[in-house]
Formats: sequence, structure tokens, C-alpha cells
Amino acid sequence: MPSYTPPIRDLQFILHDVLKLSQSDLPGHDELDPGFTEAVLEAAGKLASEVLAPLNLPGDQQGCRLENGVVRTPDGFGAAFEQVKEGGWTSLDCDPDYGGQGMPYTMGVATGEMFVSANMAFNMYQGLTHGAYSAIHAHGTDAQKQTYLPKMVSCDWTGTMNLTEPHCGTDLGLLRTKAEPQDDGSYLITGQKIFISAGDHDMAENVIHLVLAKAPGGGAGTKGISLFIVPKMLVNEDGTLGARNGVSVGALEHKMGIHANATCVMNYDGARGWLLGDLHKGMRAMFTMMNEARIGVGLQGYACAVPAYQNALAYAKDRLQGRAVTGAANPSGPADPLIVHPDIRRSLMDQKSFLEGARALALWSAHLVDRSHLADDADADGLVSLMTPVIKGFLTDKGFETTVLAQQVLGGHGYVEEWGMSQFVRDARITMIYEGANGVQALDLVGRKLAQDGGKHVMAFFDLIKAFCKEQSGNAALAADILDPLKAASKDLQSAAMFFMERGMKSPNDALSGSYDFMHLFGHVTLGYVWARMAVASQAALEAGTADEAFHKTKLATARYYMARQLPMTATHLARIKSGAATVMELDAEAF
Amino acid sequence: MPSYTPPIRDLQFILHDVLKLSQSDLPGHDELDPGFTEAVLEAAGKLASEVLAPLNLPGDQQGCRLENGVVRTPDGFGAAFEQVKEGGWTSLDCDPDYGGQGMPYTMGVATGEMFVSANMAFNMYQGLTHGAYSAIHAHGTDAQKQTYLPKMVSCDWTGTMNLTEPHCGTDLGLLRTKAEPQDDGSYLITGQKIFISAGDHDMAENVIHLVLAKAPGGGAGTKGISLFIVPKMLVNEDGTLGARNGVSVGALEHKMGIHANATCVMNYDGARGWLLGDLHKGMRAMFTMMNEARIGVGLQGYACAVPAYQNALAYAKDRLQGRAVTGAANPSGPADPLIVHPDIRRSLMDQKSFLEGARALALWSAHLVDRSHLADDADADGLVSLMTPVIKGFLTDKGFETTVLAQQVLGGHGYVEEWGMSQFVRDARITMIYEGANGVQALDLVGRKLAQDGGKHVMAFFDLIKAFCKEQSGNAALAADILDPLKAASKDLQSAAMFFMERGMKSPNDALSGSYDFMHLFGHVTLGYVWARMAVASQAALEAGTADEAFHKTKLATARYYMARQLPMTATHLARIKSGAATVMELDAEAF
Repeated sequence: MPSYTPPIRDLQFILHDVLKLSQSDLPGHDELDPGFTEAVLEAAGKLASEVLAPLNLPGDQQGCRLENGVVRTPDGFGAAFEQVKEGGWTSLDCDPDYGGQGMPYTMGVATGEMFVSANMAFNMYQGLTHGAYSAIHAHGTDAQKQTYLPKMVSCDWTGTMNLTEPHCGTDLGLLRTKAEPQDDGSYLITGQKIFISAGDHDMAENVIHLVLAKAPGGGAGTKGISLFIVPKMLVNEDGTLGARNGVSVGALEHKMGIHANATCVMNYDGARGWLLGDLHKGMRAMFTMMNEARIGVGLQGYACAVPAYQNALAYAKDRLQGRAVTGAANPSGPADPLIVHPDIRRSLMDQKSFLEGARALALWSAHLVDRSHLADDADADGLVSLMTPVIKGFLTDKGFETTVLAQQVLGGHGYVEEWGMSQFVRDARITMIYEGANGVQALDLVGRKLAQDGGKHVMAFFDLIKAFCKEQSGNAALAADILDPLKAASKDLQSAAMFFMERGMKSPNDALSGSYDFMHLFGHVTLGYVWARMAVASQAALEAGTADEAFHKTKLATARYYMARQLPMTATHLARIKSGAATVMELDAEAF
Repeated sequence: MPSYTPPIRDLQFILHDVLKLSQSDLPGHDELDPGFTEAVLEAAGKLASEVLAPLNLPGDQQGCRLENGVVRTPDGFGAAFEQVKEGGWTSLDCDPDYGGQGMPYTMGVATGEMFVSANMAFNMYQGLTHGAYSAIHAHGTDAQKQTYLPKMVSCDWTGTMNLTEPHCGTDLGLLRTKAEPQDDGSYLITGQKIFISAGDHDMAENVIHLVLAKAPGGGAGTKGISLFIVPKMLVNEDGTLGARNGVSVGALEHKMGIHANATCVMNYDGARGWLLGDLHKGMRAMFTMMNEARIGVGLQGYACAVPAYQNALAYAKDRLQGRAVTGAANPSGPADPLIVHPDIRRSLMDQKSFLEGARALALWSAHLVDRSHLADDADADGLVSLMTPVIKGFLTDKGFETTVLAQQVLGGHGYVEEWGMSQFVRDARITMIYEGANGVQALDLVGRKLAQDGGKHVMAFFDLIKAFCKEQSGNAALAADILDPLKAASKDLQSAAMFFMERGMKSPNDALSGSYDFMHLFGHVTLGYVWARMAVASQAALEAGTADEAFHKTKLATARYYMARQLPMTATHLARIKSGAATVMELDAEAF
């Protein structure tokens, strides 16, 4: 069975050496000194590695079952969920007014990475609840907040998002679920929703569904959509649970992965629901959840590749096969460990350099989210909005690729389920699909975010890199290997953005044909940027005479790898983008 | 359930417009006129699409079971296997002296693609038999050939390859299975083999295992290895079946995919075996199987992505979601089909342009194999030997990627097993691993094939492209979009080969750190070359006033797509290669 080691040292490095968390001017951040965050991370890491990780492979093998309308989670999940709740992990970054601990989102992401790495399917029950919590917190009435939030913060009640229907996912304007207004101000919800993660299970007293539906008078398309709170068990005025609501599980999907998370067909048969936010403004309320969920899925994308890499690495050090081409490295043994072979190194370095870069990107973005909320910083908000599709699309594509690389290191054993590598690949695959398939992320980036507010946010992103490079202009030690490649990659990104601006208005297909490549080009530049920041931080630590020389030298070597071996992809993406729509759109549909 | 449409038109185009099969000077090829090959392909395609394809998803869901030591294949497999045998499909390109039909290997590959596309797990029972047939045909005594080949040509008996043991796969020098010589000239084989595809099943009277083992006196490492024929049921002198041999199935592996093929742990407990080929020269005999098997796996790599693409395409035409950015394409419907969206096109064109190029590469290579055998052409043999790791490594990596792209088109439905897209991904994944993991292919290419015979074969490959480009130097219509990109990509490949030659001797790690990128760079140039040849063929057909204008115009458009959108990858591969070993090998193993 795969093992999992929490990356505490690396998380601490990013939080303190790179982001300098406790020196931030944001409220409450002065308490987040290295000793405090380390204690939090250690506790989360212990729970993740000792309780959740051992349930991952068994959970995949057993899966969820639907028994007489009730979803049963795999053995051990219920007890583990209690431990997560008791440890206060569900309330970490929630509002203290509703029982939360009020830590910044950055800490939620840092601990969340470990929970996802340990057991992605398990962590989704809590993750979805957090999304629903955020939507109610942002859009609910005081009474709704008082009724639902304390129970959701503690995960005594869990939450879901209900968007997709059999005939529509991306294009929600087509949805058919109906909401009929009642005299008491509630609505009766009728329709079928599919692909509802954590739609039902046996670990909580109640499940609070947030459901998109059409109420009368809203008009066609997405304009007519409203968002409703539909609890599985109706809640009495005194907060106790009442009768069962008219919502039931129609079926469980049989999926490629995340077997231990219940993906439900949900049937609403005149279920009682209450409007959340404004009538006919459901899409806006839903996007509160969606943006958080998209960053969360980006986190999943790389986090579920972390143990894949760790176990590939352990195998590469352990498995004896062949001899190093430069002479035996293990002359007393029958063969050398796999890790001596350059192509195994190439694979491990591809994995390592992506994962550490992704971690830095996730935490930097989380820190920007905190800045946007705690300091009402509109620029930070704009930057997060711009980067959200990149975080979701790029980190999940590359995270999946990383699990495939890791699986490959084990050869035939990687293909056998008992070794657990296949599960990482199968689980990672969903992250490219849900919360908006990655093609939709690319469309969001190029079709909406790029030109948002007159292109202000993308200009701010370029300014950030320019300012950083200028600040480091005297840094001779990092110039050739780190800063020059970053500048070249950034130039490719600017060139692509310019191409879209020139072509986009008169020939939108030219821009959209390159949207996917642009998302990846953007992702590479972003990872190049955070790698350069990490290199500067490690250089500073070494110059200051750190006691942990090995860590920082490894960090610098890994930064150089990313620059030399990953950033050259930007040239190919740019070439693809600049070829425009000509070859993409030439054929008639019938010609395929 | 997914459907499958045999690509008869495209196969015919490659066989006749591109390879001009029946105009070849090879023996028997004058009979292979378009009418004849079409009849063969139609018959194979009918069997594949009507009998084998409908068993693919049920076979995945049911899998194989081990019951009291006997492997049971999924429902319907036995009856389908009889139909394949009765149709003569197992004997198509086998030696007429042993009941074969003596058709060229090219026809075996053309029909084989369809059988793999329809049901990869099913086709492996026959595919492994063909590999074992080839080894016995090449290295067996007359008596051995008479005993085994007729039954294997008909697939009354099937075959296996037994290489891997629990502690060794790639490094066969470590293997422990022992062969003790007996007075009657036979050997007693004792040991355990793992990952044995089609190791046992209920569709044939006998299974003929070819087993690598160490007989006394051979010395250490691979030099001491011999190859043995070990039948499951002993064969009497009169050819009838005798007693059960001392070989049994220890377990079935639970795998990510190819569930319907029995991957067995085989236990040899003093099983009686007979030497195949020379004592202590087992690796050579095994490589007869391995080379054929590697080309066969390359074929699997793209072939199992063909139905994935077909079903993604069907979904993209059928599923209504969103509107074309340039104006509604289906104004009377609630939304436009997915295929109007540029990013869906990008994905479909990536799939289509890879698959059609891969098909042309597979058939061209098969034609070279025929030339090497039927005309004893050493140059053709050298070219095939050079390209075998590229065909195996590149076509399986890209084939897998293609299944992932296809799955993505279906969004959430792609992740649900009932739709069948997940199976294509899970099945395709093994092709990157077995018959030598793709990293081993890259090592074979750069560490062995490139310098083989003084680099003669890679020079011959470059000469081929040069000659082609020279021949087309007056072809203005194809110059900018087809020929120039091919030349540029080929230059990148030459530059990489030059880098290896300069560095390889004094710093082998510099070459091996770039081996994987070189394999892909080579693959892109090879596909660029066959695409250019297809473009020339379609151009000629159009100029000659073909009745099938739409087909050839589509072919030209797809060629342009490959050149514009895939060939730019060569620059990135070259950049990675030229960065050498520095960043790849810098870290100590402990620093990871």
C-alpha cells in the first residue's frame, strides 16, 4: 500500500521564506509565526498520514454502496470523519461568528493539500461543505446563516452543489429543474440533477443541497436561474431535524476513480427549498462557490499527485535494476537502484519540479485571496480572478500527467491496483473535468478574464514579473539559469496576449483556437515566476548561513531544472497559438 | 456503449495511394490490388465491429476469474474466438507450410488495427500466440515446428511470453527461474513468472509458454539465459495431448485495464520444457518475439485510441451545449453542437491528425518489415530496427494522450464507466508499460540503435527525408504548409543526433538525459514525414480528378494541422535535449 509523508518542511518554506506570512500587514497574520504554523501543519499532517491515508486504497476498492436509498461510505470513513471534526479541521478558516477558527484561507490550503494527498475522495465530503458554507455565508439571510452555518462549519451537516442535469453541464441556461413559489415564501423544487459529489452518505445528520433551478418570471437562459437551499432533512424552527424532504438518491455513478466519494443522481420531487440570494440571480451566488471550488480543484490536481511522486521515488530508490552507465553505483548489490538512470531522474525531476512549483502557486494564490478579503484589495481580487482558470486548468492537467509519470516508474507494478499507483491516476483524472472542464477554463481565461476591466489584471500580472526581474537585475548568480528563462517565457506570454488582442475582436476563433495553449503557457510562466521567487528565497537563506543548506541547494537545483526543462514549452504553445484558427476550423463537421 | 466503425477508406488510401502496395516488387504483392485488400479489410472490419466490439465493455466489467486453478474468460469470448479462428484471421500472415495464408505482414497490421480497436484485451490472446509462433518459426527445430506451429497458426493452441519475475523485469540478467537438464534432452523448469498476458484461459486446448530460464553453465547475467518451450498440456508423439505439465496459475492480477485479458502469475514446479534455439542464447531468440511484440504494442497504442476518437467525435456532433462565438450554427435548436467550439475542434484535430499519421507510420513500417523479410533487404531491416522503439514509445504515449483527449470531450460522462471512455484510457495505459517500458525504448533508441552499424540507419532515415524533400522541391502548393515544417523538424532531429554524437562518448548521461525527448522528437518527425507523403498522395489524387474530392481535401487539411500544431513540439524537445544532464543528474538520491 502507498505511504504518505506530509511535506511540512516545504510548506513552511513557502509560507515563511517566500510569502513571509507573519510579516504580512493582514489582520491576524502576525500570529502566524513559524512555530505556530508548524504546530498546525504537524497536527494536520499526522491526521492525514496516519488516519486518512490508510483508508485511501481500501476506500477505492470498496467504494460507496446504495442500500435501500441510503448511501454507505467505505469501512472506517465514519470514524475518520469524526476525528476530522473533533480536531476542528472543518472549521479552520471559517467565520468565528459561526463556530469557525478564523484562520486565513492560506492555512486552509496548506492543511487542505495534505488532506487531499492522503485521501482525495474522503476529503471531498468536507470540501463540498466548505463551498456551500461560503455561498450561504456570502448570500444568505441572517436567519439562514444562523440555521445552517454552525452545523456546516462543524460538518455535522455537509453540503453539495447541484448544477448539472442529464442534458446540460457547461451550458446551464438549458436547465429544466423547476422551482414553484409557495405562499409561505418557500419553493417546491422538481427535477433531476446528476454528478452530485457527496450527494448523500452516512457520515452526517443532514445534507444541505444548494440547487440551481428556474423560478417563474426569470426569462430564458441563465438569467432565469435562482439558487435554492434544499436540506435533505427539513429543519424545525428550534434547529432540530424534522421530516425527510422530497429529495432522494436515484443512483450512484460507477466512475473511473474517486470511488469512495458518492457521486449521486439526485431526484427532487417537490422538495421544499428556500431562495439563497436574489431571485433570478442564482448564477452569481453559484459563482461564489464555483471560484472557491475551482481553486480547490486546482489544489486537488497537484495534491493527489504528491503521494504518487513520493511512492515512485521510494520505488526508484529501492528497486534494483540495471547498472548506471557511468559505472556501478551499488557494486556490492546485484544491480543499481532505478534512480541512477538518467531517464528515471528526468521523470522524477519533472514530477518534483512541478509539484513544488504548484504548491507555491497554490499558497501564493491563497494569500492573494486573503489579501482580497481581509484588506478589501481589488487588485489582489483581480489577479486571483485572472489566475483561477489557470490554477484549475494547468494544475489539474499537469497533476494528472504527474500521476502518470509516477505510475510509469513502477513499470508493471504501477498497473496493478494493489500498488495504489493506478488509483492516483484514476482519481486525478476527474480534476480535469469537474467544476468546469479544462477547455471551459481556457475559454474563461481567454474569452473573459483576459479582457476583464480593460485588460487591467493581465497587465498587473506582467507588471509583477517585470518588477520582480527589475528588483533582481543585479542578481548575477541567478541571471542565466533562472531570470533569463523567466523573462523569455514571459515574453512569449505577452506575445500571445498581443496576438489575441489584435485578432480577438475581428476573428474570435483565432483567439479561442489558442485558448488551451494559452492556459498552459500562462501556467508555465506562473510556475516560472514562483520558482524564481523560491530561488531568491533559498539564495537568501544560504547567504544568511542557514543550518539547512541541503534543503536550499536542492531547491535551487530544482528551480534550474524547471527553467531548463519545462519553460521551453512556452515556445511551442506560442507557435500553436500563432497558427490561429486556420487549420483548427477549416473542416466542416461532416468532414471529420 | 461505444460504437466502432472500421476505417476501411483510410486503410485503403494508405495501402494503395501512399504505399502503392500492389505495384511493389515484393513476391505476392501483385495480387494485393485494391479490390482484393478491400474485401479482406471489409470482412475483418465486419467481424471486429459486429462481434468483437460489442464484447469490449462487458468484458471489461466482467473481467477474468480464476476458478479452481482455471481461468475463465468473460461471457461470449469463447464463441467469438471460434469465429476469429473459423474466419482464418489467426493465420493470415503465417507460413503456408504450417497452415498459414502467407499474406504479407502489412495485411496483418491493417486487419490487426481493427481487431485491437474493437477489443484490445480479446485480441491479445491471439497476438501473444503470433509472437510465440514467430519465435518457434525462427528458432525451432523441424520437429518443434511440426509439433507446435500448425496448432498455433489455427489458435487451437495459444502462446505466451514468460520473461518477468517478481524482482526483475527490464534487467533480465537477474532472473532466477532454473532449467535442469534431463537425460532425455528435456529440462525441468522451476520458478515464478509474473505479468504473463494470456497466461491461461478457457478458449484453447493448450497453452504453449515460451519461458526464459537459466540452465547450468551459462555464466552470470543475460549470457546464462536460455529460452524453453513449456506446454501447459504435454504433447504426445502423435500430436495428441497428454498429461498436465507442472505449470499452474498462481493468481490473476487486478489491473487498471485490459480486465478481459488474463494477466497471470505462473508457477513452474519442475515443469517439462524443451530448449528453443541455442543453449544460453535465449535472449536472442526472445528478441524475435520482442521486436514483433513492440511493433504490435505500438499498433495497440494508437488502435485503442481510434474508437475513443470516434465516440468523442460522435458526442461532439450530437451534444448541444453553448453557442458558436461567430453566431448560432443550429439556430432552431436550444444550443449548438459541441463541435462548433474552437477548443473542441483543437482536441478533435489533435486526435484525428495523430491517429491517421500513426496508421500511416504503422503500415509503412510493416511494409518495410515485409521488404526486409521477402526481399532480404538489410537496409529496410536496419530502418525497422531503428524505428521500433519510436513506434512502440511514441505511438503508445500519444495513443494514451489521445484517449485522454477523447474522454475529456464527454466531460463528466467520460468519467462514468458506462460510457466506455474510461476503459479506452485504462486499456491504453498498459501499452506504455509492457514489452519494455517507454523509458527503456528511449534507452534502446539512443543507447543502441542510434549508433548501430556506425550510425548507418539514422543516416539512411535522414537521407530518406532529404530525398523526399528534393523530389518535392518544385511542389509550390505544399511548400509553405507541409514541406518547410517537415524540413525544420528534421533539422531539429539532426541537431539532437549531432548533440548526442558529440557528447555521448565522453558524457553518456548527457545523451541519456535527453533520450525520452529524442524518442518523441523522432516520432514527430516520422509522423511529419508520413503526413507529407499522404499530402502528396492526396494532391496527386485531386489533380487526377478523383471522385472522392472530400476525402483528399480533408486529408490535406489534416496534414496542415499536424504541421502547424504538432511539429512545433520538436523545438521544445530539442531545447530539453540540449540542456544536457546538468539539471537532471545534479541532485544526490538523498536530496529528492
